This record gives sequence, structure tokens and C-alpha cells, in this order.
Amino acid sequence: MEPQVSFLTFATADLDAARAFYVAGLGWAPLLDVPGEIVFFQVAPGQVLGFFDAEKFAADAGGAVPPAVSGVTLSHNLGSRADVDSTVALLESVGGAVVRPPSESAFGGIYNAHVRDPNGVVWEIAHNRSWSVAADGTVSLG
Amino acid sequence: MEPQVSFLTFATADLDAARAFYVAGLGWAPLLDVPGEIVFFQVAPGQVLGFFDAEKFAADAGGAVPPAVSGVTLSHNLGSRADVDSTVALLESVGGAVVRPPSESAFGGIYNAHVRDPNGVVWEIAHNRSWSVAADGTVSLG
Repeated sequence: MEPQVSFLTFATADLDAARAFYVAGLGWAPLLDVPGEIVFFQVAPGQVLGFFDAEKFAADAGGAVPPAVSGVTLSHNLGSRADVDSTVALLESVGGAVVRPPSESAFGGIYNAHVRDPNGVVWEIAHNRSWSVAADGTVSLG
Repeated sequence: MEPQVSFLTFATADLDAARAFYVAGLGWAPLLDVPGEIVFFQVAPGQVLGFFDAEKFAADAGGAVPPAVSGVTLSHNLGSRADVDSTVALLESVGGAVVRPPSESAFGGIYNAHVRDPNGVVWEIAHNRSWSVAADGTVSLG
């Protein structure tokens, strides 16, 4: 099994709120949008982020066993601290809730903030000086 | 804000179990491995999946506000139904728990299964006939 994530899918209590936040708020173009069911956005080469109606998510995953993770974040990396500040302000202006305002992380060289979307999905907005991506998509961390 | 996920990070109660499953079990090479803290794997061009010690995750995210999502899955797409069956067997052999055995999904054209890793992270293993990725990474769904 190769290390490849094709879809990243969140159970979503309020799909219309997700649509308002990402499509109307941030201007993202859905790859596919099925009202009442799911909305998909491409978020990396070969990868799609989906917000899936919570009841249908549970049915698709076999019903009785919800995922047991205690926390998950999506990180969005930016080129400067000023970009972090302006992006957090943008997210707040379209309905995001700032969980942790921009500040230096406990991890050196990272300036970041945490913002919840209307369904509780947490985005880390970060400037990480040790992050780089080569032309072929290979990530380096330091 | 562009639609780009740089990191996908899970709070992980048992980091050694994650390392045993992904590194020893599946043979994935970590991009970075910090014992007691975090282990990272590249899972798409320009994107990293991290398993992060749960206490340190909570501290980094501001402590008091855990993400409120009710479910999340990572999907791994494969080229055939036979590949789904063999990959689910592989995952089970290295300590994964099959939540839903391979079968036709309620969504037409998808043959899939759900498997939990040792920390409760759920992988969907799928053959989806409407999934395709162009040379530049652009996804099509149908």
C-alpha cells in the first residue's frame, strides 16, 4: 500500500454552512457538489477534500463505529507572517471562529493560528520557515 | 486563500502504535520522525500526514477547544476490486481493524471497505470507477 491519500472526508452536521463558508466565503470552486449529500474540493494534486452529510457518512462507514480520533487539523501554509494574519482575518470575516490567534508556536520557526470552520473542522494557518516543496511535489521539513 | 492542504494532522494517543502500523507494518518511510512527539509521512505532492502525540496536539491547538468533528476518513484509491481485497487483508495483518468489509457502496460504481488504524483513524480502501487523475494532478469524478 503506497502512502497516498486520495480523499479526505469529514462528517458534516451542516452542509449548507460548509458551502457558505468555502464557496461563498472563500470563493473555492467545488469539484462536485451534490446538495444534501456532499461537496468536494481539490486540495492537493490527486487529492480531494469532501464535506459529507453526517448521517450519510455514518451509513457509508458501516454505521455503528464512528472514528475515534480526539483531534484533527488541516494546515494551510503561507509564505509570510503577514499572510497568516490576513488569512486568519479573512476566515473570521466569512464565519470562522479563531481558536488561537496568530503567534509563535512552541515549535521553533512556526508562526501559526487555529481557526474552526462552521462545522468544527480546525484549520491551522501557518508560516513555517522549514517547509519547502520541490517542483515534483516532494516536501522538505528543515 | 487557495484550496491547498499542506499538513493533515491527527491527535494520536499511542504514537508507538502508529509507528508500528505504518513504518514496520506498511513499510512507509517517515519524512520526519521525532520519538514521543510526531511522525510525518508524505501522502500527496506538497502534502504531509502527521500523527502527533495527543497532549502536544492539544497544547499546540490552544488546549481547551478540541476539534468537534464527528467523523473523518482518509481514502486510498486503488485500480481494481482485487486490489481492495488484498490491501484490506494487508492492513488487517499489520494490526488494522476492519469496520466494514469490502462491498459495493451505496454510491454506484464504488467498491470499498473501512479499516481503523490502532489509534482510531479510519481508512476507506476503495476502487472507484469514476475517479481519475490527470498528469498534472487534476482530479476528475465522473
